[in-house]
Amino acid sequence: MSILTKLMPKTDAFFDAFEKQAALTVEGARLLKELFEDFTDVPRKVKEIKDVEHKADDVTHAAFALLYTQFITPFDRAVIHRLLSAIDDVLDLTDAASERVGLYDIRTLLPEARELATVLLAQTRKMQEAVHGLRNIKDSQRILDACLEINSLENQADSLLRRALADLFRSGADPLTIIKWKEILDLIETATDRAEDVANVIENVVLENT
Amino acid sequence: MSILTKLMPKTDAFFDAFEKQAALTVEGARLLKELFEDFTDVPRKVKEIKDVEHKADDVTHAAFALLYTQFITPFDRAVIHRLLSAIDDVLDLTDAASERVGLYDIRTLLPEARELATVLLAQTRKMQEAVHGLRNIKDSQRILDACLEINSLENQADSLLRRALADLFRSGADPLTIIKWKEILDLIETATDRAEDVANVIENVVLENT
Amino acid sequence: MSILTKLMPKTDAFFDAFEKQAALTVEGARLLKELFEDFTDVPRKVKEIKDVEHKADDVTHAAFALLYTQFITPFDRAVIHRLLSAIDDVLDLTDAASERVGLYDIRTLLPEARELATVLLAQTRKMQEAVHGLRNIKDSQRILDACLEINSLENQADSLLRRALADLFRSGADPLTIIKWKEILDLIETATDRAEDVANVIENVVLENT
Repeated sequence: MSILTKLMPKTDAFFDAFEKQAALTVEGARLLKELFEDFTDVPRKVKEIKDVEHKADDVTHAAFALLYTQFITPFDRAVIHRLLSAIDDVLDLTDAASERVGLYDIRTLLPEARELATVLLAQTRKMQEAVHGLRNIKDSQRILDACLEINSLENQADSLLRRALADLFRSGADPLTIIKWKEILDLIETATDRAEDVANVIENVVLENT
Repeated sequence: MSILTKLMPKTDAFFDAFEKQAALTVEGARLLKELFEDFTDVPRKVKEIKDVEHKADDVTHAAFALLYTQFITPFDRAVIHRLLSAIDDVLDLTDAASERVGLYDIRTLLPEARELATVLLAQTRKMQEAVHGLRNIKDSQRILDACLEINSLENQADSLLRRALADLFRSGADPLTIIKWKEILDLIETATDRAEDVANVIENVVLENT
Repeated sequence: MSILTKLMPKTDAFFDAFEKQAALTVEGARLLKELFEDFTDVPRKVKEIKDVEHKADDVTHAAFALLYTQFITPFDRAVIHRLLSAIDDVLDLTDAASERVGLYDIRTLLPEARELATVLLAQTRKMQEAVHGLRNIKDSQRILDACLEINSLENQADSLLRRALADLFRSGADPLTIIKWKEILDLIETATDRAEDVANVIENVVLENT
């Protein structure tokens, strides 16, 4: 790569990447919620989420490659790295949860899974707002409000998970069913944790740049 | 925030935050040990640990906000970030372990849980010493000695966990009880891993500044 | 430590450390594969892997100490830190998997464990190639090819794990056996994830330096 190419600032490309990642993450969460709302045709729906995750992987890898070949980046390189990774993690975990549903050949839905997916979807939409806000970082209040909501939705997911686990262990279900659902619920809740990481990175970017 | 406010060095505020975090982490570990020493009135004791964890969260969030609005910090910003996060994690995991005890409605105590909590408490006290030492970083030997002890206590926790898991699986307990206790023991042992992370960050700070 | 000692560049020492770590990681993976190929004399073989892991710990700790006392390092300090940690993690997880085999007193082998260990071994050999390549970073194609293969082997491990988990839950084995093997398989697969982290760090180093 020539010095000139490296010097040409492509800061827009990073904002584009964040937004593409965020849009695909919303799409993944929406499909997970749909899966849990209409628990039929499971293998096809699981496959759709996997496809979305693959698309997002391509976006993330291209952005990483750009990150390490550009001299000029909109924020600190380490921060961009963290942000790309954190957004990517949210969708990875969404996909991992859905994949387990297919893998374990789960037939009966746990209602709390649907509630958790609903919270995750709301959270990814706020994440999309926050990420979009980075283009106009001076309008910091809107970004910080979205981050605040992401955190509050994480708390909601956390309470939901706790209630779901307590119910699950009291349910009288067989141990293997409990192990399977515990893993799926944990994965969705970890996705909401990673969304909170995204919000934390964005908050810090805003605080440092305003 | 005005440039002037940003320029006013508030390095003491970071040392205060580290120490407040450390003191609350000791408090959390002490309460966990007490819970396992006198396994009565469990919901109230679990709630007390949760309250301590909430207080520490406030300290951590205020310190993060300060970190990103100050021009002058006592060490590298990324190092302070890592230290605040690592200390915070120790108490978070202590609380998560205690929360699971309540959540899973556990009635019979596993003796190794008490032993693990005892090691964790000893370790958090050494962590408090090491963190306090950061104010006088030139007196490096005391800090490094505390870090060494934190690492050695982590090894002890690791051995304890392994023995506990082997015993647990051999115990003839029902699978659900084993799953529950395995998670609780893993959480406490992970808390001691995070305390080792704290020690590693502090060691590096000392090596870089002496 | 005197200023002069700090100023003396010891960049070779870091390449030596990476290579020693990588060689021990290959050794650990080779021993794990052997354990799963000839499932006899398990405690002795588990102990051998633990010994290799202890040797690697010494290498890693010495390199960390050097990292924070040297003014001149071959790449960015944070990158070296990440690379040392990531390589260390691969062997740690290999050892953790083997340790669980001993701890849980496992008598009957799961064939997929052997397949996973075979993939891990192939991957650690590619990791060794990539790490060795860092000495001649201008010959970037060979390094990047090795990284690509590490990633492709990670995908293979991922597929293997999924198949193994699905089989395991369908096997009719008792829940405790399933819990034990699930943990061991997850640990090996996480080792291959960490190897992918190593490849990602190395790719970034190459992109930034060519």
